Amino acid sequence: METARLHDGILDINRFGIRAHRLSQVASVGAPVPPALVIADAALAVESFSDFKAELESHLIQGKLYTLRASPGRADWGGPHTFLALGMNDDVFNEMIAAGDVLTACELYRQAIASFGLAVSGLDGEPFETLVAQFGSYSPDENEERAIELLKATRELYKAETDEDFPQDPIEQLAGAVRSMARQWHAPTAKILRNAKGAPEDAHLALVLQEMVHGLGATNGVGRIQAVDPESGSRKLNGMFVKATLSAAGANPSKQWRIEKNKNGPSLEQFDSKAFQKVIAQIAPITKVIKDAPELKFVIENGKVFITEALLARRSPRASLQILLDLVEAEALSREDAITRIDPSSIAAFLHPQIDPDAPRDILAQGVAASPGAATGAIVFSAEHAMSAHSQGQDVILVRHETSPDDIRGMHAAKAILTVRGGMTSHAAVIARGIGLPCVVGAQNLRIDAASAQIITSDGNVLNSGDIITIDGSNGDVLRGAPAKIEALLDERIDQVLRWANDLRRMGIRVNADTPDDARRALRFGVDGIGLCRTEHMFFAQERLRNMRRMILAETAQERREILTELEPGQTADFIEIFEIMKGLPVTIRLLDPPLHEFLPKTDDDLPTIAETIGVSSNDLARRIRALHEFNPMLGMRGVRLGLIMPEIYEMQARAIFAAAAEVNKSAEQPVVPEIMIPLVSANREVELVKSRIDKIAANIAKKSGVEVPYRLGVMVETPRAALRAGDLAKSAEFLSMGTNDLTQMTYGLSRDDAGRFMREYVNTGVFQEDPFLTIDIEGVGELLHEAVKRGRESNRSLLIGLCGEQGGDPNSIHFCELENFDYVSCSPYRVPVAQIAAAQAHILLKKKV
Amino acid sequence: METARLHDGILDINRFGIRAHRLSQVASVGAPVPPALVIADAALAVESFSDFKAELESHLIQGKLYTLRASPGRADWGGPHTFLALGMNDDVFNEMIAAGDVLTACELYRQAIASFGLAVSGLDGEPFETLVAQFGSYSPDENEERAIELLKATRELYKAETDEDFPQDPIEQLAGAVRSMARQWHAPTAKILRNAKGAPEDAHLALVLQEMVHGLGATNGVGRIQAVDPESGSRKLNGMFVKATLSAAGANPSKQWRIEKNKNGPSLEQFDSKAFQKVIAQIAPITKVIKDAPELKFVIENGKVFITEALLARRSPRASLQILLDLVEAEALSREDAITRIDPSSIAAFLHPQIDPDAPRDILAQGVAASPGAATGAIVFSAEHAMSAHSQGQDVILVRHETSPDDIRGMHAAKAILTVRGGMTSHAAVIARGIGLPCVVGAQNLRIDAASAQIITSDGNVLNSGDIITIDGSNGDVLRGAPAKIEALLDERIDQVLRWANDLRRMGIRVNADTPDDARRALRFGVDGIGLCRTEHMFFAQERLRNMRRMILAETAQERREILTELEPGQTADFIEIFEIMKGLPVTIRLLDPPLHEFLPKTDDDLPTIAETIGVSSNDLARRIRALHEFNPMLGMRGVRLGLIMPEIYEMQARAIFAAAAEVNKSAEQPVVPEIMIPLVSANREVELVKSRIDKIAANIAKKSGVEVPYRLGVMVETPRAALRAGDLAKSAEFLSMGTNDLTQMTYGLSRDDAGRFMREYVNTGVFQEDPFLTIDIEGVGELLHEAVKRGRESNRSLLIGLCGEQGGDPNSIHFCELENFDYVSCSPYRVPVAQIAAAQAHILLKKKV
Repeated sequence: METARLHDGILDINRFGIRAHRLSQVASVGAPVPPALVIADAALAVESFSDFKAELESHLIQGKLYTLRASPGRADWGGPHTFLALGMNDDVFNEMIAAGDVLTACELYRQAIASFGLAVSGLDGEPFETLVAQFGSYSPDENEERAIELLKATRELYKAETDEDFPQDPIEQLAGAVRSMARQWHAPTAKILRNAKGAPEDAHLALVLQEMVHGLGATNGVGRIQAVDPESGSRKLNGMFVKATLSAAGANPSKQWRIEKNKNGPSLEQFDSKAFQKVIAQIAPITKVIKDAPELKFVIENGKVFITEALLARRSPRASLQILLDLVEAEALSREDAITRIDPSSIAAFLHPQIDPDAPRDILAQGVAASPGAATGAIVFSAEHAMSAHSQGQDVILVRHETSPDDIRGMHAAKAILTVRGGMTSHAAVIARGIGLPCVVGAQNLRIDAASAQIITSDGNVLNSGDIITIDGSNGDVLRGAPAKIEALLDERIDQVLRWANDLRRMGIRVNADTPDDARRALRFGVDGIGLCRTEHMFFAQERLRNMRRMILAETAQERREILTELEPGQTADFIEIFEIMKGLPVTIRLLDPPLHEFLPKTDDDLPTIAETIGVSSNDLARRIRALHEFNPMLGMRGVRLGLIMPEIYEMQARAIFAAAAEVNKSAEQPVVPEIMIPLVSANREVELVKSRIDKIAANIAKKSGVEVPYRLGVMVETPRAALRAGDLAKSAEFLSMGTNDLTQMTYGLSRDDAGRFMREYVNTGVFQEDPFLTIDIEGVGELLHEAVKRGRESNRSLLIGLCGEQGGDPNSIHFCELENFDYVSCSPYRVPVAQIAAAQAHILLKKKV
Repeated sequence: METARLHDGILDINRFGIRAHRLSQVASVGAPVPPALVIADAALAVESFSDFKAELESHLIQGKLYTLRASPGRADWGGPHTFLALGMNDDVFNEMIAAGDVLTACELYRQAIASFGLAVSGLDGEPFETLVAQFGSYSPDENEERAIELLKATRELYKAETDEDFPQDPIEQLAGAVRSMARQWHAPTAKILRNAKGAPEDAHLALVLQEMVHGLGATNGVGRIQAVDPESGSRKLNGMFVKATLSAAGANPSKQWRIEKNKNGPSLEQFDSKAFQKVIAQIAPITKVIKDAPELKFVIENGKVFITEALLARRSPRASLQILLDLVEAEALSREDAITRIDPSSIAAFLHPQIDPDAPRDILAQGVAASPGAATGAIVFSAEHAMSAHSQGQDVILVRHETSPDDIRGMHAAKAILTVRGGMTSHAAVIARGIGLPCVVGAQNLRIDAASAQIITSDGNVLNSGDIITIDGSNGDVLRGAPAKIEALLDERIDQVLRWANDLRRMGIRVNADTPDDARRALRFGVDGIGLCRTEHMFFAQERLRNMRRMILAETAQERREILTELEPGQTADFIEIFEIMKGLPVTIRLLDPPLHEFLPKTDDDLPTIAETIGVSSNDLARRIRALHEFNPMLGMRGVRLGLIMPEIYEMQARAIFAAAAEVNKSAEQPVVPEIMIPLVSANREVELVKSRIDKIAANIAKKSGVEVPYRLGVMVETPRAALRAGDLAKSAEFLSMGTNDLTQMTYGLSRDDAGRFMREYVNTGVFQEDPFLTIDIEGVGELLHEAVKRGRESNRSLLIGLCGEQGGDPNSIHFCELENFDYVSCSPYRVPVAQIAAAQAHILLKKKV
């Protein structure tokens, strides 16, 4: 059994828990902390009781009272309730009575008996409370007698329920308390709750046995204080102070007083300005030693100040940044330490566009602010409609009574989600936060009339499908029209933190950007390039889609080639624009990936119109759609398979890439080196065949344009086989980019679109520890990635390794990539700052370990 | 440069090729083989020409002629054409003229010049042939002068085309010939062709330089002979003999003569009975030394017999078995060696049911016999119809103009395929052979009238959808009705071979059997148990399907549970029957695997009827079908996912299994130990959860029935993640069964149903070396299997390892499983004998290597 004294140096958090660790830090700077013995493991203390007893006997001072408090490894892992006034017995009580403090003595004895009865003897709390309530109405002059009566009744109640007298031996009290706390800590529910917060299976509980300061009495009280404003993080004293009046029914706390002098009511400063000064004086040294802004709990007892607990100051995400900046400025914290303190996910909240505070708001309805950010778009009432509108480049808001897994694809296609039903944990809210979409749920004063395809507001406004609305997911407003929006990243605090993160990270952070707009936004975040430019989105624009469909319906390769020639100038222009924006930074272009049927209409209703547009009969179009139908499109003719069976498509894309790069490089200061990425590879021969075609095209364009464009060819590792054969692939490829979305789907045999039906239940019941689409499954997908990196690098020392799945914006996954020494990760624009911070953290932590 | 003499002992096949190896064996038993020098590597001979020249000089005998022949590692790897009459020059020619053999001398010289000109100097063959044709019409008495004229013209043509005289130095001729053969061997096309037949990348070419015997002249000739009948394999001399008349235009071969005396025409026996006896006398000793029935090529020259080549006797698959049996009986071959000689795939041809030869045949049409066996069923005209009829337990014949990848699922559901168009390599033919379905293609005297859904035969017969026909895929007949059929495996030769194979194999061979009928058929093949009993098929019978659908449409778990109780007795009865048939052999039952929507109607047409049958509204049914729709059903809610989200389904199945086993074990001599297999696992927690439920049910049934049923729980390893986590799984499971169909799909990210569109092109262009669904992809899927076996066994020493994908019937895959020490493979009933032989072969070969 391991124990330590609080004043004997700073205690290790892993052995003695967070409470003991912090208190030992506080004590180390001379702050007035009551002496305490720390027991490293409550369960072990119970097991080896004889050691424990001997230790206690040498420690306990006869006549003193003690508190026993939980000291878990992390504050949010919970822990059993505190025991008060341990050591109280008739002798101590009589000494206190003799000293004249009858009410205090009674109250402490009563508390000791009741809390012991509840926790150790397992008694019901209600009879004890009823007793107290019975004594609540006596007049102050009867207080002392009645308090003694209450205590007596409490002792009798204890005896009646347990058939024993309240134990008088302090050691016996303490042994019972420790046993009780160990038992509570190891109860299954407690375990599940703390495991959900990341506690390891074998997390133990340390205990702090401390001399009790109670703050009862006329000149005494308890309070908490912090020196930073919880909202803004700026320097401002706040907190509260409470003093208790004692009566027959025990302690009766006052209202919360303020800390500083204030005209609106009483304050600690007025009540005891010396104590106030003493308390304030503790904050600066404690800040230094814990390297963070503290919230201190203090007790004032007979003119003395005691610090009983040091927590971290309460703070909003925004405030937490300010605090860190101040700590660094005050040299209380290094930049490295500051960066590791940030919860990267909290950054996401700042990064969504917001409605301009000065813009007029035409509020139609209000609901629950379920996922932050503001977005504007046309109303659609179904997932199908959202997908088809999206495929035509339209911004839409998906409006539903509530969403179901069937809506997930539609949600991905929408700019924001609005539901009439549901709360913060509804399907819509959970998914929207996951994919970073603004979302308002439970807008109950709206009514959806399915028959007329209209929204009717409570004051009779009618909105039709296609009408433009704006969703403010940060405050729950639903607004008519498109109020002006502001980008949120202009906050200087975030810029500062990101600058540090970018200095401190090793791994490149790139962005998944498909359009010039995406590229521009990404550059503002200070990315290292585009890690994934999906070219399919470039063909959904109205006029291109028409040609794309004609191409798909063409009967011969020759015909296809001709139509592709019509599509080529647009594609070339896209690349020119993106290359110019990126000014020589790497741009990874993925050749066409989705199966061709994704470009064809999804429902029969559109057939006649579309058939007319592209100049075929409805029957022909329907026949072709049927012919292209796939049972499992994700595992069908897409990616490089399409590229090899219809080589003219990739050839057109390659021509567009080289022509664009040649054009840009003619005058650019920093010439672009395009990176061409082949999707859905499962065999190296696929890469070789595509490579030989691309090489020819590159040579052709160089001859024609007179500009030689160097380029890098890469493979997207999305199939388990590609991961296993990475050694081969690395001979043909200059980079491998881990496509962890598809790789996860294939490794689990699990379609993300279809997993919605059961993923929540799977995670809740612990079948999967986490949703593997949100964070890399280290044990399965992780092993494939590890092997791919190892084999790839073994066969090609200069191989670049990246990741471009959605996990690229997930801090845990980024940590894994740092461990595996990836060259970069690429993620969606709004996740870039999250990734930058997470990458810096991972690098800092890893350096420390090494 | 390595060389060897043919008569100096038996030459290693790996260094000197198959021709030299066989000839050295023939020479070793004293048969009259002309002397020869064997050059191990043509390319090396070219490289180190000085060694080669020295060697040649010491070997060549002035005045003799030589042939130079290719000796590749295997006969079917091809090889350059033979050079004749090397060494011929003016001196040799003049000697022959002086000896009086003018026509022979001219012909040999002309052959030498022409073949040298073509192969070494790269001349066009046509002018040489034109020359010969010009001399074809002279009368016999002008022969000698004209032959000299032809030779002169040939020499002039050579000089005109090459600007050089025909080289007179035999060494120079030989050097040119060797260079030419080396070049041809390493030409890209030749390489591709032999690689396709399994030649390694670095396969070299050996050469046999042999003294030439030409067989020209009145008393001479050439022939081939074998002592077994090519059709039946029984002992019967056959072959042919040819003698050439020489004329001005060279050698003019006779018609083929028979070997033995025959009243219908001339024979070797009549022509030269001594030579005939000498030839026959060679067969027995050569049979002994090559351990197989030979086909000998021989030359008779001036009364002498020479053996110039020993091939394996020509034989049908049936004959080859007879030959092996005879060789074993004659103790020329061990059983082990006999088994390794069999091409396991050839066995499949014997195993399909055939139409009883005595049954009357009402022939409607004839087409190409594309895939063997006979099958009877009702006509259907679409894949959808085939699937729905199949799902109702009906046997159907799918009739199409031609098939496309869209038909593949329908083909799997049909008993046979009939197409109006196409040949042996049409889509229908290829797929049907792959999945072992009888198939007739190109039945062009049939007409399909789509509008009336009828087949019209050329003589006006009309067949409607639903009419019963029979397909004879072994001879191409399409028959009306259901003629009697016979099982084919009654052939005693096959039984004998299978008995040997079953004695000689280590690995268990189980069968994939879903019904009592399958189980009975499998037992006749002598299997070691059922390795995969798919329970979904048990719910497609009419009355069960109705309840299954009601269950799927139920709104609550309670309602589902009630309907499942109605399904339980049928399921129990199925298992009782199968357990009784299998008499204590292992039976592996896979819990329900497919997604529930597979049990619902596929087209809207059936909705009203089905809705009425199960007692819901059409709208409700349509809504539920929509709700169950999945984007990628293979990666959706199926297998253990279904089992965990709707636990009542697996619970019903477990109850049925244990109740059936308890019932059977009450009286069985060999009690059944059911093996319960969980499909589509990706995490061990899935197994633990199912296991704990099954354990409870087993205990319940034991209590109720008084019979304790031991059972084994296993996991089907179908996802890459399950393979990687096999170490965990093996802690919960007693066996792992590799589900290589799905594992291949997921490792490649490739749906088998959708791969049809491009698989052929992928294999043809070498992107994939083989179709990974037919034979295990060693480099990708194989690595996952290897790791799964290793990790599984490391964590559970008594773990059983099996395989139950379709590759379980593929010889190459079986070889892999033997290497990895699998306990068993399981395959479809008609592949069982193939698997038994392949398993024996693998074991024999592996023992030899060790």
